[in-house]
Amino acid sequence: MDDLTSRVRAFADERDWQQFHTPKNLAMALAGEVGELIAEFQWLTPEQAAAVMSDREAGGRVKAEIGDVMIYLTRLADVLGIDLVEAASTKLEEVARRYPVGQARGSAAKR
Amino acid sequence: MDDLTSRVRAFADERDWQQFHTPKNLAMALAGEVGELIAEFQWLTPEQAAAVMSDREAGGRVKAEIGDVMIYLTRLADVLGIDLVEAASTKLEEVARRYPVGQARGSAAKR
Amino acid sequence: MDDLTSRVRAFADERDWQQFHTPKNLAMALAGEVGELIAEFQWLTPEQAAAVMSDREAGGRVKAEIGDVMIYLTRLADVLGIDLVEAASTKLEEVARRYPVGQARGSAAKR
Amino acid sequence: MDDLTSRVRAFADERDWQQFHTPKNLAMALAGEVGELIAEFQWLTPEQAAAVMSDREAGGRVKAEIGDVMIYLTRLADVLGIDLVEAASTKLEEVARRYPVGQARGSAAKR
Repeated sequence: MDDLTSRVRAFADERDWQQFHTPKNLAMALAGEVGELIAEFQWLTPEQAAAVMSDREAGGRVKAEIGDVMIYLTRLADVLGIDLVEAASTKLEEVARRYPVGQARGSAAKR
Repeated sequence: MDDLTSRVRAFADERDWQQFHTPKNLAMALAGEVGELIAEFQWLTPEQAAAVMSDREAGGRVKAEIGDVMIYLTRLADVLGIDLVEAASTKLEEVARRYPVGQARGSAAKR
Repeated sequence: MDDLTSRVRAFADERDWQQFHTPKNLAMALAGEVGELIAEFQWLTPEQAAAVMSDREAGGRVKAEIGDVMIYLTRLADVLGIDLVEAASTKLEEVARRYPVGQARGSAAKR
Repeated sequence: MDDLTSRVRAFADERDWQQFHTPKNLAMALAGEVGELIAEFQWLTPEQAAAVMSDREAGGRVKAEIGDVMIYLTRLADVLGIDLVEAASTKLEEVARRYPVGQARGSAAKR
């Protein structure tokens, strides 16, 4: 993960793209890539979506889009000085407290 | 990273939430969280956005939203059997070939 | 529709919010609101989603989110000098040519 | 606007696409199109974004993307039985009450 952060940073530095990689722009780019990812699933039935990785072509596109989303998320976190895994871990602990196992079991109700 | 994947999976399993965590639903949840993240930046000037982490409150919200995005991205990749870091690395190599350093330097033009 | 455009514009003018309503910011705000809308549907089964308007509370939230999306879309189009209905009509005609009735019938395949 | 709703509905009916046009799928399609729209602005400076419509090519793409967003928003509202303009008007009145002119003037602070 640290290695990915460094490689994405080097990729941007080599191309002199830091000027474009402001937090606002990166948040937009992230939203754009998530839009492309969601478009892969929009017309699929739940069953087709669940089996998407067995389709070589569609599965390849999904993997590529997930890669794009991860690249921009990694870059945005780096630019902001946020540790991605730590941010997710901290949030996961918080959500775990908000949705205790006993009460949340099998329910998607928001708290 | 592998550890985060396991913890997110355990979190869902314990709550019997696998039933909700279909690829379609997780892609939607990811888009929803990215929407919350982008909302943190929408009215900020580029300068304010760049300094957002020095604001304790806004910075905390941004970190929490990035954590949420990472949780759902990790979960979606896990459900699809995709290695998140590998997918990003593969895509980064591909993009590096499409935007060679010499030609892409300082330009945001799409190819 | 023209009336809505005028009212949204007056709303922004009265509050001196034109300064925030740049195309970039409005595109972000639009994405943020679409994120909130999608979040209303993310954990619903297709059946639950189809019946969402019969649920008074959830239906009210969906209507409010759709209203928010429409407000920002109207505002963004106004700021850019685009006629929303004309832009949609033109695009619909173009898509109709790309997906002729005979060939596209019952298929979601992208062209 | 009513006319656009009818034309989008006829477009879907003729192609037997009602089966794909569930609320969940349409919300995803809407998010996908907003992702394409936001991608048009992501690397532009605020100044470039403000002038995007004077660029024939980029302006044409922006108008087309706004058309796409409007088509899916119109379709989603129709499928849910929501009047788009009425939903936006109702929400605008509510927001106007929440942000009274005197207090909200020149401030983007959320309430």
